[in-house]
Amino acid sequence: MPPKRPVPRRGRPGYDQATVLRIAVDVFNRHGYEATSMGVLADNLGISKSAIYHHVPSKGDLLRLALDHALSGLEGILTESGASSGRADDRLEFVLRRTVAVLTERLPFVTLLLRLRGNTEVEREALERRRTFDHTIAGLVDAARTEGSVRSDIDPRTTTRLLFGTINSIVEWYKPGGPLSPEKLADDVITMVFDGLHLPAAARIS
Amino acid sequence: MPPKRPVPRRGRPGYDQATVLRIAVDVFNRHGYEATSMGVLADNLGISKSAIYHHVPSKGDLLRLALDHALSGLEGILTESGASSGRADDRLEFVLRRTVAVLTERLPFVTLLLRLRGNTEVEREALERRRTFDHTIAGLVDAARTEGSVRSDIDPRTTTRLLFGTINSIVEWYKPGGPLSPEKLADDVITMVFDGLHLPAAARIS
Repeated sequence: MPPKRPVPRRGRPGYDQATVLRIAVDVFNRHGYEATSMGVLADNLGISKSAIYHHVPSKGDLLRLALDHALSGLEGILTESGASSGRADDRLEFVLRRTVAVLTERLPFVTLLLRLRGNTEVEREALERRRTFDHTIAGLVDAARTEGSVRSDIDPRTTTRLLFGTINSIVEWYKPGGPLSPEKLADDVITMVFDGLHLPAAARIS
Repeated sequence: MPPKRPVPRRGRPGYDQATVLRIAVDVFNRHGYEATSMGVLADNLGISKSAIYHHVPSKGDLLRLALDHALSGLEGILTESGASSGRADDRLEFVLRRTVAVLTERLPFVTLLLRLRGNTEVEREALERRRTFDHTIAGLVDAARTEGSVRSDIDPRTTTRLLFGTINSIVEWYKPGGPLSPEKLADDVITMVFDGLHLPAAARIS
């Protein structure tokens, strides 16, 4: 019979599920989910495979829990009042700003989500939830364009893709705890995409 | 002795090096460079392994040739006159616009470049060339900020990263030959990052 409690090896601490998950996500991001065996995970955690099985039944469950942490953070944004009331461009700005916040707070989890290839059922379900989220943003872009608050000379599908491209790429370089705070980063993203990098004409010298 | 000419299997056409390279890059992008063996490549090409060796000595040489095609396209931009004369913001706009063009023209090659992890010497050399290119763009952002043509309330390193994030993410969704031409895409990117998605204040209703 497998042990009921994790059995730490030689003085290693016992872990709670959240810690196992955090370390597993780091290993998945470094080596790829498919290339990571439970043995590699156990080595990284410094505990036995059976101790991992105490926390989760399988590697797929670790993935499911990790992706749910990323997705529930993103989906939660859409239930906030800023996402559902006011002008469409204000709602769009609110959702994008909060998306940057979730992305920086849950950085390794969102990184894992964004690198998915959809090879397993767990991955396909996560991609479906992500598509639903993306679809809501696309709807806000459409609504802002219809109300005349964002430019209509760019196709709204292109606008949506460029917005996601800009925001999602943050996972590739952002370092939590560094000199750039998540709030300033969100300000910078919103400033660039809505107002542009050029100074307003009135402020220019030439 | 290996054959001097490719030996097509059962009616398959012989390939030139450019075709072998193009198909190899597609397979690398689908399965990952490391996970792709010469046997898998031969299956995809419909020719024997020895026929591939007629074109290139090794899998690493295919990678080197493919990355050089992406990088020489990008580096070529910096030798054009638009990159070296005029106001810094005009030079920056020129380089970004041409980067979008190279990216769409050489899409699978640039995709391969952007997904590199630097595990081999060939990859590390390519990443070094990419860093040099990126560094030149960062210099243009600095210069445009100094001349007062782009906003100074965003740190230039953040600006550079957001610009690359926006542009590089195009490889994830752009479909050559579709309704969005490379020229319109470049216009859209330049419009969003320099002028923003909001309509100019004068054009707004509210």
